[in-house]
Amino acid sequence: MRATLMYGAGDVRIENVPDARLIEPTDTLVVVTCAAICGSDLWPYKGMQPSATGRRMGHEFIGLVEAVGADVRKIKVGDLVVVPFAWSDGTCEFCQEGLHTSCLHGGFWGGTKLDGGQGEAVRVPQADGTLVPLPVGKDHTLVPSLLTLTDVMATGHHAAVAARVRPGKTAAVVGGGAVGLCGVIAARRLGAEQIILLDRHADRIALAREFGATDIVSERGEEAITRVRELTKGLGVHSVLECVGYEESTRTALSIARAGGAVGRVGVPQDALMPAAVSTFFNNVTISGGPAPARAYIEELLPDVLEGRIEPGRVFDWVGHLDQVPDGYRAMNEREAIKAMIEF
Amino acid sequence: MRATLMYGAGDVRIENVPDARLIEPTDTLVVVTCAAICGSDLWPYKGMQPSATGRRMGHEFIGLVEAVGADVRKIKVGDLVVVPFAWSDGTCEFCQEGLHTSCLHGGFWGGTKLDGGQGEAVRVPQADGTLVPLPVGKDHTLVPSLLTLTDVMATGHHAAVAARVRPGKTAAVVGGGAVGLCGVIAARRLGAEQIILLDRHADRIALAREFGATDIVSERGEEAITRVRELTKGLGVHSVLECVGYEESTRTALSIARAGGAVGRVGVPQDALMPAAVSTFFNNVTISGGPAPARAYIEELLPDVLEGRIEPGRVFDWVGHLDQVPDGYRAMNEREAIKAMIEF
Repeated sequence: MRATLMYGAGDVRIENVPDARLIEPTDTLVVVTCAAICGSDLWPYKGMQPSATGRRMGHEFIGLVEAVGADVRKIKVGDLVVVPFAWSDGTCEFCQEGLHTSCLHGGFWGGTKLDGGQGEAVRVPQADGTLVPLPVGKDHTLVPSLLTLTDVMATGHHAAVAARVRPGKTAAVVGGGAVGLCGVIAARRLGAEQIILLDRHADRIALAREFGATDIVSERGEEAITRVRELTKGLGVHSVLECVGYEESTRTALSIARAGGAVGRVGVPQDALMPAAVSTFFNNVTISGGPAPARAYIEELLPDVLEGRIEPGRVFDWVGHLDQVPDGYRAMNEREAIKAMIEF
Repeated sequence: MRATLMYGAGDVRIENVPDARLIEPTDTLVVVTCAAICGSDLWPYKGMQPSATGRRMGHEFIGLVEAVGADVRKIKVGDLVVVPFAWSDGTCEFCQEGLHTSCLHGGFWGGTKLDGGQGEAVRVPQADGTLVPLPVGKDHTLVPSLLTLTDVMATGHHAAVAARVRPGKTAAVVGGGAVGLCGVIAARRLGAEQIILLDRHADRIALAREFGATDIVSERGEEAITRVRELTKGLGVHSVLECVGYEESTRTALSIARAGGAVGRVGVPQDALMPAAVSTFFNNVTISGGPAPARAYIEELLPDVLEGRIEPGRVFDWVGHLDQVPDGYRAMNEREAIKAMIEF
């Protein structure tokens, strides 16, 4: 079968790899029908050290179940399934608490040992715990939005939950990439009255406004902090969604939170130390977040997607086939595209 | 009147100062009947730059109301009042949210403009919002415990609340000073089943065990982290109370939290950057806390003190008069004493 591998910064190749197949009795074999490139795939694209063997890529995908292991009970051959970016058993104490990304028997797609979603097929471990069957066909118009439930929409929602977005309160979203845009959807869905997007790219800003952003701040650093305070009676915002992960964006996020407010971090932090340790302390700002337990959130968000109340699939503005994936990486990295979808 | 001033590191003096008096119509004049030295008073005691004018000290005190301003409605002459470590109007939006330490018209005792609690009398601004009358006399046996409601017991409680202590779950308290000891009381009061104290001083450990600590970890750094994991099935603790503020204690606190757990910071951070930004992210650890809204918590904790269910006053193991305050600082700084009480 064919799959995407990364061999180093900027070096993405589509190659023949061994066919995915069942190994454990709890596995399923999923034939991928659509997948996506994630903003987090750009971190290795920018900085990965050269590798002789390469690394399998992709953790956002939907597919058809082609085979099930002997111990799989809930998932059937022929199911169209949405696959969270982490696999999980659904039964350990972390899964029971809803934190499937910390599953004691789970893990993450791709790398050197597992299949990645940017390929023709994937062996899915812990299939009963991991997969969620969809009530639509693989070519349904809702598929792009359903595909976002694997990661970006769940992650935007996690940022909003971690930032404790509440009805009638203020929210700010730092970074208008696909996750930030889903964060705007999530903040609106949870009832925020004022939603400030911090970003400077016209295409993202236009979409954010359609998703519910009420104010745009395109300044950076101290100027951005000043501008947000002007927009919030000088007090800052109740809920800040940090959707980037850089030191500067994190500092901005922590600095625009109102006293007693909360920051939900979902941008993968690029630094070992966190800024603003003292100001967040004196303002009693809560810092929360991390990898989203997408598996837990899919059940909550799925009805809103199926009934058209949210349309996160609109973040896809690049569509291509597997052979075009290297160009999809390039387009996202150069900010020609917000997010790339791969059709099989 | 006489009061405590600090002129630099290790330089504490008792001096004559202008008598405290009413200035604003919302003021009261409180004659101090007992006060305390706080662990946070030791930060300037260790590192304050020399000052020609000195700085008034003390923010933990109980006293008798001697005079009230024309606009004071709730507080009466003769009331014995407990005074939170921050003053607040009780009406602004932060006070209404229970975050009195961020009051839009409040502030903190001492310094160069206001009276401090380690003196014979204090002008209390925003008296109706700030003060809580007590139903006992100034010499009642419960006074030491009531005195802790001004700060340390409220702060230990805040750490436990910020760390989301829950019945039947695990908690760890990093640092067994007076605040940490009150954190043990608070964690037990909120129902934690296992309470691990990280400290190495015999007097503190003995008291912590009486307050409800179930396990003691006297190792430091990586060894402490390993030991706590051994005590918690390898998973870490649900709730960590950081009661020190140093980089190492903060790193330990953030590293022993279980995935999905929370750290309540109440030790004043001594560094601009926070460690473990990446591991807390991948473990979805929530970081919360800051200055405790003591004014909000007094109403919650007062019945437990009055009815003897908690005895935080046992943290006082040094008692002296105003003239002995410099020795109280020395004793606490050299860890001869856990906490010093001043009788007037």
